Order: sequence, then structure tokens, then C-alpha cells
Amino acid sequence: MSIHNIRKVKMNFAKRTHNCGELRESNIDDNVTLNGWVSVRRDLGGLFFIDLRDRYGITQLFIYPEQQPELYATAQSLGQEDCIWATGKVRRRDSVNTDMPTGLIEIWIEDMGVISKSSLPPFEIKDKSDVSEELRLKYRYLDLRRPSLQQKMIIRNEVSQVCHRYFHQNGFVEIETPVLMKSTPEGARDFLVPSRINRGQFYALPQSPQIFKQILMMSGLDRYMQIVKCFRDEDLRSDRQPEFTQIDVEMSFVDQDDVISMTEGFIGELWKETLDIEVAGGFKRLSYKEAMERYGSDKPDTRIGMEIVDLSTTVNGSGFKVFDGALESGGIVAAINAKGCAGYSRKQIDGLTDFAKKYGAKGLAYIKFTTDGISSPIAKFLSDEMMEAIKTATSAETGDLVLISSDSWRRALTILGALRLEMARQTGIFDNLGGTFDFLWVVDFPLFEKDDETGDLHAMHHPFTSPHPDDMEKLDTVPEEARSIAYDLVINGAEVGGGSIRIHNSDVQARMFKALGLTEEDAKEKFGFLLEALTYGTPPHGGVALGLDRLVMTIAGTSNIRDVIAFPKTTSGLSLMDGSPSGVAAAQLAELGIGLAEKPE
Amino acid sequence: MSIHNIRKVKMNFAKRTHNCGELRESNIDDNVTLNGWVSVRRDLGGLFFIDLRDRYGITQLFIYPEQQPELYATAQSLGQEDCIWATGKVRRRDSVNTDMPTGLIEIWIEDMGVISKSSLPPFEIKDKSDVSEELRLKYRYLDLRRPSLQQKMIIRNEVSQVCHRYFHQNGFVEIETPVLMKSTPEGARDFLVPSRINRGQFYALPQSPQIFKQILMMSGLDRYMQIVKCFRDEDLRSDRQPEFTQIDVEMSFVDQDDVISMTEGFIGELWKETLDIEVAGGFKRLSYKEAMERYGSDKPDTRIGMEIVDLSTTVNGSGFKVFDGALESGGIVAAINAKGCAGYSRKQIDGLTDFAKKYGAKGLAYIKFTTDGISSPIAKFLSDEMMEAIKTATSAETGDLVLISSDSWRRALTILGALRLEMARQTGIFDNLGGTFDFLWVVDFPLFEKDDETGDLHAMHHPFTSPHPDDMEKLDTVPEEARSIAYDLVINGAEVGGGSIRIHNSDVQARMFKALGLTEEDAKEKFGFLLEALTYGTPPHGGVALGLDRLVMTIAGTSNIRDVIAFPKTTSGLSLMDGSPSGVAAAQLAELGIGLAEKPE
Repeated sequence: MSIHNIRKVKMNFAKRTHNCGELRESNIDDNVTLNGWVSVRRDLGGLFFIDLRDRYGITQLFIYPEQQPELYATAQSLGQEDCIWATGKVRRRDSVNTDMPTGLIEIWIEDMGVISKSSLPPFEIKDKSDVSEELRLKYRYLDLRRPSLQQKMIIRNEVSQVCHRYFHQNGFVEIETPVLMKSTPEGARDFLVPSRINRGQFYALPQSPQIFKQILMMSGLDRYMQIVKCFRDEDLRSDRQPEFTQIDVEMSFVDQDDVISMTEGFIGELWKETLDIEVAGGFKRLSYKEAMERYGSDKPDTRIGMEIVDLSTTVNGSGFKVFDGALESGGIVAAINAKGCAGYSRKQIDGLTDFAKKYGAKGLAYIKFTTDGISSPIAKFLSDEMMEAIKTATSAETGDLVLISSDSWRRALTILGALRLEMARQTGIFDNLGGTFDFLWVVDFPLFEKDDETGDLHAMHHPFTSPHPDDMEKLDTVPEEARSIAYDLVINGAEVGGGSIRIHNSDVQARMFKALGLTEEDAKEKFGFLLEALTYGTPPHGGVALGLDRLVMTIAGTSNIRDVIAFPKTTSGLSLMDGSPSGVAAAQLAELGIGLAEKPE
Repeated sequence: MSIHNIRKVKMNFAKRTHNCGELRESNIDDNVTLNGWVSVRRDLGGLFFIDLRDRYGITQLFIYPEQQPELYATAQSLGQEDCIWATGKVRRRDSVNTDMPTGLIEIWIEDMGVISKSSLPPFEIKDKSDVSEELRLKYRYLDLRRPSLQQKMIIRNEVSQVCHRYFHQNGFVEIETPVLMKSTPEGARDFLVPSRINRGQFYALPQSPQIFKQILMMSGLDRYMQIVKCFRDEDLRSDRQPEFTQIDVEMSFVDQDDVISMTEGFIGELWKETLDIEVAGGFKRLSYKEAMERYGSDKPDTRIGMEIVDLSTTVNGSGFKVFDGALESGGIVAAINAKGCAGYSRKQIDGLTDFAKKYGAKGLAYIKFTTDGISSPIAKFLSDEMMEAIKTATSAETGDLVLISSDSWRRALTILGALRLEMARQTGIFDNLGGTFDFLWVVDFPLFEKDDETGDLHAMHHPFTSPHPDDMEKLDTVPEEARSIAYDLVINGAEVGGGSIRIHNSDVQARMFKALGLTEEDAKEKFGFLLEALTYGTPPHGGVALGLDRLVMTIAGTSNIRDVIAFPKTTSGLSLMDGSPSGVAAAQLAELGIGLAEKPE
């Protein structure tokens, strides 16, 4: 059989022999061709320089106007961001630039041409830009030309690469779970997808592949990993996106320690590969209770001190009705000591009070320990001995400000936890932590949390989380006191992931659903296939899900989630570049069997 | 800061020391614990055997009923698919099983227990199963316990691993593109996702990340790869799924040969790693025109011969009105020679005629060259010389069956292409091809295809495909004759991927939209941001997208796409396991601002 040879199709530019980041001293005298974007032009009259940029770096091009009048004319006509090709000889630079890897050489251009002209960009392509984020998102393709943003994409890629490699080496199988799945509105809202073929019915986009990864364990796949898009139709906060990416892991025949140590191994490899930092395994562990009582948070930043002090015993029987009231209704009185903040003004204190109110505080008691003695609006209600006892308990010294909250256990601690972080921000404690990493597991989470208003129980993680074996009986009697085998990974006070050992017994799963107030019919309607699957010899299993976006943010050192996503959405769920979401033709909706509802008044 | 030591949470089973596939002769006398599923029990009275199965293999467990009465009782109570743990000593088998890697050893059980009992499975977990696919899909978690299906998941994982590694090594950056994007209904139908926050507006799920990967090239990211889910709301054929996975690749500053050779490198690595087969690069290339004229297909299987022969000149002026009519209206007369099929019965020939009609044939002419001479219904219309000339042209010998089609160029060739494959199937040619791979590029595709009914032009690949430089002028004058720089990768007659060099000039892109009948307003409304992006110094770029599902099918040697997807949907778009799609609560729809339309009568 003779197969004809197809003629090569040529493009209308000279293809690069090298990229803009790789030429070194050893290339001197080589003839090379580069392709890239005009970043900077410098016309010094007798000398003409162009900084040519691509993803890999910047290389300086050079023209002698006197000897190369035609090239000079071309060069003068170049605008910023023009895409060009240039051919020439590598030579040693007269003035070396040690800040850049190619800083020893330049290219003496012999021929060049424009591949694509550029319109005037709406903003300059440089790392430090004070242009609005809105404009940057609209012109994301130009924004993404900024080396600092490209670098974040490259870090994200490295994180993915390490992830694929690490879990593969540890015997995990990457398996894709469906994006079009069943709607089971637990927790956050589902995004729905109308089915055209099955009129009146809907798929949902996964909030997580939780059920599928458990099904895979029931299938005996043993170890599963997936880097997977998840979706939550929530009202967005500034650090949330409607679609986000999860490193999703599940293992069979394991206990909590197995999952934790597998995860720590991954984190260690990741920090080594991306930051060249050695991270020892065996991260600290705090129980949820201790995390709350010491730091007022289930994701504490333990790098900063300012631990919470329980003053309930200290102020017991004070006669001050705010404290007494809190203690009598089962609450607590607790405090933090803001070192060196006794000089806070009335206005600053008011600011802190307003801040505390956002977390449900009714007010904020404080004591300033100044050189002039104690200054506090509650001093008149407490004895001098009690004030002294508070000073001792909080290790307060002259110059310190003690902030006190008296409320229910959860609320008082949450308020103080938030104040603790706020005081660390205000006093500059965070500024001195650059590049440090604090790894922590929070464990022994409660199985449920109680809705303050309705008294309903909700699963604290999700309804498939195994109760703690010691608390199995509480599941039916005092479920709100039952702990779970759930664990969260916290880095620098941010939750980067969480997981649990799952229920592997259909009876326990049924009791769990019952505690959540699901009738048997409801449970069957929503999770019938899972309940049935559990009856066919389910292995003990557990796993973890890590937020890829958050991990990359931590490693790249940014607090803006939109900096680690190539095409993010705004907090209103808009893509400013392509203009989605958008209206669609009535015919498209008709075909799907749906219509727009009337706008409510 | 003291962090308490959290007590280890224990599970109620003995954790495995080894998996069920790894024990060998060298482990003899080791004390081990295994976890797994009861696959087979054999009670021989004096000896009791259990085959314990997990993802890694099967290990034989052994009990002496006489010496171990309690264990024997436990063992007797075991049912199939019970999940158990077992501890014991590795010893040499009396009767070696050389078919399995663990066949030299068995475990003499000293202790064992049930982790999870199994209900009676609805079908037996074994590789060869004649149970209906519907039942298998409903109980997918049990179906996935079959080793042959697990093996396909593992092959799929290997394909992904090679992909991540290969493209990373070649400087590609993996970047995630949005799943929630703008609806631009070109080609197939979009799946729509109503936005709750932006009432009355919709996202669409991507049919491919085409526009985003081009945008990334405009951003200077240079080399992009993503293994990505894509979605098409089409009426499903048996080899299609509403969601499918694509290996999506894009490169800057390249021509067709660069993309092709990068792809061939990947295929070579893939075949080497998964099948241990060396594949030489430099795959054959056929132009679209030649592929059609020789094989009647743009994805020809060139392993089988039976090439199409153009008889237009041979039968020119025959006076036979069927042939003359086809030729006069610009069509062709062409044939294939089905070797050795002269003995086909009337019924068999009728079957072939019906088959040809599915491809638009009005009838099917044939000539049998038998030992009794020529037998053909058209013999009476053609001279003996012409019959002889046809025999010569088709290299027909006694015993052969020549099938002739006279129609428009495309239809005649398509009919013969289909008949060629059907005859290969019927005559067993395919049966002798097991394990052979035929790699082929089809290139020089037309830029457009014409709708036979409306005369409208559609983009043959997509509207961003670059016209062939030699045909740039035809874009405005005779666009239907313009070729593109597009290429498809074909393996064994199946299209596993395709790509093109893209348009990198906004004027050419605008001319392209014009040829497609899009007004300037339409083009701006749908692709305005892309047209604008093209004006900022766009690099020449091109890429390829490979169907991951199809690649895995090819490597795993299956023709059932549902065998390479963990949780596939039926041809009606249903997931039989979780029952999606499903009805949702009216409140959920109300919140989204949509309602169900009345059912049309």
C-alpha cells in the first residue's frame, strides 16, 4: 500500500530555535531565532534595544541603527505587545544584568518581522499594576501575560504534578466520577442541569464526589484519587468560587492515622518540590474542643500566641450580672490578653466592639492595665481582688489590654477567636510570619452541630462520617454529644482540607440518617442506592479532600483566590471576560422543557 | 506551646499487612494478615479453602476443620462477597497453581473475622458474565468488583499518568478551564445551568475548552494541556456519552508538523508504557480527498485492503442510464472488489443493498465473476468489453464479487466505504487483526461542509480552524473549495482525536465568520471577546484534542465505551445506579427562577 507523502504546510514566520529564557554565555556566537512579545523598547539614538518576552523569560535584542537602517525602521514601528520573530547572533552584553538569567547576553538582530500587531493594551503588562481587578478580569488574556500571574499558574501545575505522581506511587488509582449526577440537596445548594432527553428531570453538578468515592471503595478499588471540579451554588464570599478544585482521596482498610500519614506524606513532598522546604511528618493534633477553648476557632493559627483564658472560675460569684447571667445559663466568661494595647483609644475600642458584634457579641468588656492603674468600665462591678485575679489569670502586665467575652461556650470562644486574629493583624504580629508554615490537624470533631434557631441537627462534616467508636451509643441517645472520626488539616489558620473515616455499616448509616431527622422514605429516596450498596460487604474506608485552590494560595503566598485560577468568576458569579452567565434563546429553553418564571415583586 | 497527644482511634478489625496479590515463595513462614472479599469457598470435608480477593489479586486461605473447629464454623458461615480479615502463616501449597502470581503459597489461618457481611449479590462477581448490562449498571459497585473491569480502570489510570508525565516533560502547563462558561450554541447542543444569583441567565457546560485554550496561547502560556470533561447534549449513539473526557493540547509558535510530532511522541510513550509495544513516529498521512477516494471514509481502516476503484472513465459512455446519469450530474461510478464473495446468495445481496440504502444508496449494482461466467443484473446494459474492463480495473478474479455505486462523489464513496467495512466484517478479515494497530493522520480537510438541504456552510472542524495558506483567497470566493490546516488521528479506523492550526488574525477570523453566515453583530455577540483578544499580538498556535475514552478503548481492546468509564450513562442519558436525572423540588426551581414548561401535545 503506497501512502502519498503530504507536503509540509509552512507558516509565515521564522520559528524560534530557543525560548526567551534559555540563552546563556555558552550560546555566544550561536545563530538563533526567537519568538515573543515586545515588552520594552529603548531607542538610545545610536543603539536600539528591545526586551522580548515569553513565558520563559526576557531576552534583550539589539540593533545598530546606523548600520541597520531597515531593521531600525521596523524596530521603531514596533508597539508594545506586538508579537514578533527575530533572528540574529548571540553576543556578550556590554552592560551585564545580573537580575535576569539571560542577563549576560543579547541578540544582535540580523532579520526580524512582525507576526501579529497589537492594539494598545488597556493596561500595561507588568507585575505591579494598580489597575482595577475588574478591568484585569475583563482582559484576562492580557492579565495572564503578567509574569507573576503566569508564575502562579505554573505553581498550580507543579502542585498537580506532584499530586498525580505521589498518589500514583502509593498505589492510588485515578478515577473520574460523573459531573452530571443526582441532585441531593444536603448542605449547600446544587447547580442544576435540565435534561432535554428526560424532560422535566434534572442532573446536579457535584458538590463533591463523596458518594462516588465511597462507592469505589465498595467496589474494591482500594485507593482512589482524583483532582476534581466541585460546585456550590452559594452566595459567594470573596474567597469562594462557584466552581473549585479538590484533591479527592479515599482508602480502604484504614484508620484515621493511615489517612493522616498519607496526607502528611503528600504535603511533605509538595513543600519540598515547590518551595524546597523540608516538612517533618507527625503534624500537631488538637481536638476540636481544645482548638476552640484555646484559640476560639476550629482552624486556629497557632503561630501567634494570645491564647484564650477561661475566667469562669475566676469571676464566679462576682455579682456582676452580665458575667453571672452568662455563667448561670451554662455559658462562660473568657478573655484574651492583647499585649501592649492598653493605649487603645475610645474609638479603637469601639471599633473592636463593633467587630465583636459581627460575631454575635452583645458588647465587649475590657480592662486596660496602664501605668496609671486599671482603666475599665467593668471595674466598678468587680472587686479589686477579682481584677487582680484576672490580671494573674491572663498574665497581663502593665501596658496590656484584656478583652473579655461572656456568652454561650461557642459564641464567647468564637468572638474571642476572631478578636485574637484581629488583634494580631492590628499589632503587626502577622507581618513577621512571612514564609513560616504551621501545620495542624484538628480532630475529634462533633458529629453534629445544632441549629441555634430550629434545634435541628446537621452533620458537621457530612452524613457519611463515622461516629467515634466510643460514642456509638450516644448516636441514638444524645447525638449532639457524639464525636466523629473526622479531621481537618489547617495550615496557618486556613482549612486546606478535611476528611473522615466513613460509616461502613448500613445500620449505623440508617441511625445517622435518623438522627438527622430523615425519615426512612426520605433516606431511601435520596440515598437508597448507597444504603443498599453498604449491604454487600463494605470495607472500612476513609479519606480526605484537600482544596487545591487553597493549597496553591498557601504555597504561592497570595490571599486572593482569583490569582490562582486562570479564569475565575467574580463574587457575583460573573465571568467578565466571556460575559457568562448570559441570556439564552427561548427556543433553547423550550427544547429543555423549561421556562423563565415571573420575576417576584 | 504544648499540644496534647491525641489518642489513636482504633478500628474493629485486624488491618492487613499485605494485599491479596503480593505474597510469594519468599514470604513462606511469615505471619501475615489479609483483608478482602470471599470469592470462592471450597469445603472438602477434611480441608477448607477460601479464595480471598482484592484489587491486587487472589490469595488462598486454608483451614484444617479437624484441628480448628471454631475457625471452621466461622468459615462455614461465610457467604460470597463477605468482607473479612484473616491472620495466619504463609506456607507452601500442596498443589501449585501456576496461573496466579500467588499460586505457590497459601495462608494457614490462625484467626479470622467478618468485617462486613454481604447480602446475596444479584449476580456473581466473575469476569465472564452473561448478566444484562442494565443490571450491571444498576449495581455498578458490584460490577466494578469484576477484575476485568477493574483492569480497565487501571489502564485508564495508566493512560492519564503517562499523559501528565509526557506533557509535563515537554514543557506543557496543565491549566484548568471553567466548567461554567458562556453558551455559544455552535455545533452540538449545550447543557445549560441556570444561575440563581443572576436570575434568568444561564451558564453552559463546555463542549470543549477550545476558546479558552486559544485564549491561553494569547496569554503567552505557550504550551497547555488538560485532561478535561466535555459535554454534548446530543441524542446519544451507543458509543457516545453526554459527558466524555478529552486530552486537550495547545501550542504556540508551531506548524502542523510540530503538533503532529508532539502527538506521535505521546502515542509512542503510551503504547510503550501500557502495551509494551514500540510505535515508530512518522505515522502515515492521507489527505482527506485521498482517504475518501481510496477508502470511502475520513477515518479509514487501512489494515484491510479492498480499496475503492473509480470506474468513471471505464464506464463512460456506456449508455446505461444509471451510470450515465450519475456522471452527467457530476458524480462518479466506483466499486470495491469483495474477494471470494461471488457465491453470495440473492438474500445476502439484498442484505447488502439494504445496508447501502442506510447510507443513501438508491440501489446497489453488482457483478459476480463465477466459474460459470459473469452473473450480474447490469450485464445486459454493458458491453462485454466494458465488463472485461471493469474486471481488469477492479483486479477481479473468478470467485469475486464487485459492488458498484454510482452517485455524487461524497455519497458514492461513503456507501462503498461502509460496504468495504461490512464486507471485511462478513468475510472475517477483522478477526485476523487482533492486537495490530494502524496509525494514520488524515490531513488537508476541507474548511467547510455544505448542508445538502439548505446549502449553508458549516465549519468542518470548528470556526477557529485556519484556512490552508494556499487557499486563503478561496475563503471569500469559493469557500466550499478551501482546505484547512486540520488533521485527524485515526487508529484502526476509529478517530481518536483531531486538531488544527488556528486562526491568529482577527481579520481572517472575521472573514471566516462571514463565510459561515454570521453577521458582524452575531459574531460580536457570541465571540466578541475572542475577536478582541486576537488584536493584541496573537501568536500562531495550534493543537489537538484526543478522546481519552476512545484511546483507552483502543488500548484495552473493547468496543464498549461503558467499559472504560467508572460510572457511565445509558444511551438515554440515565445513570441507573443513582437514578439521575431526577425530578427536583418546585422550591429549588423557583429559587432558580425557572419553571417546567407545559408538555407539548
